[in-house]
Amino acid sequence: MLKANDPSLSSWLAVPENSDFPIQNIPFGVFLTRDDIITIGTRIGDHAIDLGALHQLGYFKEIPLTDDIFLQDTLNDFISDGKKTWRLVRNRISELFEKNNQELQKNKDHQKIVLFEMDEIEMKLPVQIGDYTDFYSSKEHATNVGKMFRDPENALLPNWLHLPVGYHGRSSSIIPSGTPVRRPYGQTLPKGAEKPVFGPSRLVDFELEMAFITTDANALGEPISVDEAEDYIFGMVLFNDWSARDLQKWEYVPLGPFLAKSFASSISPWIVTLDALEPFRVESPKQDPEPLPYLKQKGNKSFDIQLQVDIKTDDGSVTTVCNTNFKYMYWTMSQQLAHHTINGCKINSGDMMGSGTISGPTPDSYGSMLELSWQGTKEITLKNGSTRKFIADNDTVVMKGHCAKNGVRIGFGEISTKILPAIDLNK
Amino acid sequence: MLKANDPSLSSWLAVPENSDFPIQNIPFGVFLTRDDIITIGTRIGDHAIDLGALHQLGYFKEIPLTDDIFLQDTLNDFISDGKKTWRLVRNRISELFEKNNQELQKNKDHQKIVLFEMDEIEMKLPVQIGDYTDFYSSKEHATNVGKMFRDPENALLPNWLHLPVGYHGRSSSIIPSGTPVRRPYGQTLPKGAEKPVFGPSRLVDFELEMAFITTDANALGEPISVDEAEDYIFGMVLFNDWSARDLQKWEYVPLGPFLAKSFASSISPWIVTLDALEPFRVESPKQDPEPLPYLKQKGNKSFDIQLQVDIKTDDGSVTTVCNTNFKYMYWTMSQQLAHHTINGCKINSGDMMGSGTISGPTPDSYGSMLELSWQGTKEITLKNGSTRKFIADNDTVVMKGHCAKNGVRIGFGEISTKILPAIDLNK
Repeated sequence: MLKANDPSLSSWLAVPENSDFPIQNIPFGVFLTRDDIITIGTRIGDHAIDLGALHQLGYFKEIPLTDDIFLQDTLNDFISDGKKTWRLVRNRISELFEKNNQELQKNKDHQKIVLFEMDEIEMKLPVQIGDYTDFYSSKEHATNVGKMFRDPENALLPNWLHLPVGYHGRSSSIIPSGTPVRRPYGQTLPKGAEKPVFGPSRLVDFELEMAFITTDANALGEPISVDEAEDYIFGMVLFNDWSARDLQKWEYVPLGPFLAKSFASSISPWIVTLDALEPFRVESPKQDPEPLPYLKQKGNKSFDIQLQVDIKTDDGSVTTVCNTNFKYMYWTMSQQLAHHTINGCKINSGDMMGSGTISGPTPDSYGSMLELSWQGTKEITLKNGSTRKFIADNDTVVMKGHCAKNGVRIGFGEISTKILPAIDLNK
Repeated sequence: MLKANDPSLSSWLAVPENSDFPIQNIPFGVFLTRDDIITIGTRIGDHAIDLGALHQLGYFKEIPLTDDIFLQDTLNDFISDGKKTWRLVRNRISELFEKNNQELQKNKDHQKIVLFEMDEIEMKLPVQIGDYTDFYSSKEHATNVGKMFRDPENALLPNWLHLPVGYHGRSSSIIPSGTPVRRPYGQTLPKGAEKPVFGPSRLVDFELEMAFITTDANALGEPISVDEAEDYIFGMVLFNDWSARDLQKWEYVPLGPFLAKSFASSISPWIVTLDALEPFRVESPKQDPEPLPYLKQKGNKSFDIQLQVDIKTDDGSVTTVCNTNFKYMYWTMSQQLAHHTINGCKINSGDMMGSGTISGPTPDSYGSMLELSWQGTKEITLKNGSTRKFIADNDTVVMKGHCAKNGVRIGFGEISTKILPAIDLNK
């Protein structure tokens, strides 16, 4: 067991019950402090901790780190330092905030410099995402989509069971939790029409996903093996792959989704390390047919992460519309990364790879309104009595995720995103 | 007419006959000098000019520029300065190197600092490409592909004439001319087989394209109008969108090309500004049906750029396999950028957008081996007597492009890329 994962550890910082951020988590993020300074930090309970300041005060002096490694507006350089360094830093933070450690606990002056309340700071995008890839790795989701749009008897396309299908996404539109999203404009083909019409999308949807962030992994032309893949994964975030279903339907042949996705994609701002998720490994679903050798994995490569989607309406009413789990994914992150690089594609620090919509086996575990409303044929009734087939203007979609075992709960916080009406194009 | 485009200008630097780089071009690039210093520069004839050094020596003192704007390893910050600044800098370079100007011409000491021979330097990627999008805007190419893979009678898909179809590509694998490419591995489905096999791609192909580089154009959520789009285009390069046809065929449904493209994409290293291309505007092909209002353009938005692809074999034999022209493109760059942002997608400085394969109306003007060999049904005979359906190991593919009018030739130089055998996976 990694030292920092010990369930018996507790912190001298208060951690509310059911917090996603006990001392066993120690996620990494980037935030703007009350003094308008951008810094890299971590979180315990409802305290944000300025790692830049901690480093300047000498608390990381035993670890080989450049002076400005945490005084940056992205985690990319720290991630480039590699797994050994991530682990040393996480262990040191764990040690420093452990309840018996007096170094910082007794130094109130230093605490004033390094500690912030969560409501004093503003979370930013944690990494500069060079390339973002989205996979399509839930068998239940791919089957549901295939049933709706293609042949119910042959819902999965022939390649799906042989490789983790994926595509390149748009990095520039990835935003952190809290940034509202405008309903996008685009072309759609009305039923029975021969020509498309132009206007705001009428079918804005969420896709509940998780994503992992990589470090520099290879030179162009060199694959990463499935066995080594996890060494190049820094950590994970929640991911909402916003989708405009009506735009998608018209535009996506033959080259895949484009503007239906690139208007916005939201992530949770704290990256939870793979080290912190270590205790929550579970067996992956059995793969049949057996994958080709370069995709064959050993050991438990899946993670038991409970996920939930809420729709919050303008009157404050909150309805949970989906409960699912990351462990349902058919293809693992290791397989995704091995497949992605088998052609020699270069992976950089800060690249992000989405899982694809995470749907489970039961209808209440489907990770999109498309599936929950079964292509708009069923209405979802919210707590305030209103109904939804897709997302309405001024709805806020909230995604949450956490693991729990042996009395320890490690969570991701949330992504909360409000959909605003389309802009006025005549202004 | 822009001052720097005057056909009567000539430089005190020697410009060989038929050079792509007369004083009317003034492209921008990034290179490593003989002293191993990376700098931003331009080119006249076979001379590379160090703009970082020129700026330090005070030659741009009349232009509002930060001190280190050219002392960078990418053009992104300079591009962010905007069109007005690009124009001031290009005009000033034009003035400084014009044959009657004595400022630098008489200062041999300064010349020693700022001038390099092209064979003394190493060209680098000119921009850090945040996001790369590839369009599919040649009607001839889309028709050829549709005939081969779908219905010869309905070759174009229903959306094609209504919007510039495009998809997100992989930025991390974009490389400059001169960087060799390894034949990629991947899954393919042999004819008649039920299960895929694994191995090196057998159908490696080039795609002759051009690409444009953007500046920061909008905030997330805000479209760019078709009329203003060109203000946000810095310039253009040649682009080879390497493709593994057998990988593509198996992987691409339903989300589009992925590993079939992301093993490598090559660009020419000098960015030719839209200002330099101004004299070569021509009418675009008539669009029928008329596009939706947000895609309707006024004026000449196409450019007459002659393009050519050569295959050079290991024995030095060179065969031109394609002659085509950028003016054949059905959708213009203005329409591509307006469409790309109509959903509010954010465009950053250094983003790159490829045209899609540029095929003309005649079989010798097709921009890929897929079309030239008509899906492998016809053999292309090279000058040395060997034949090709796709690209063989150790072949070098060379792409060239230039405009010519009123005695002025503005060119892009070339992309030269050698395909190396697949790596040994057992090493």
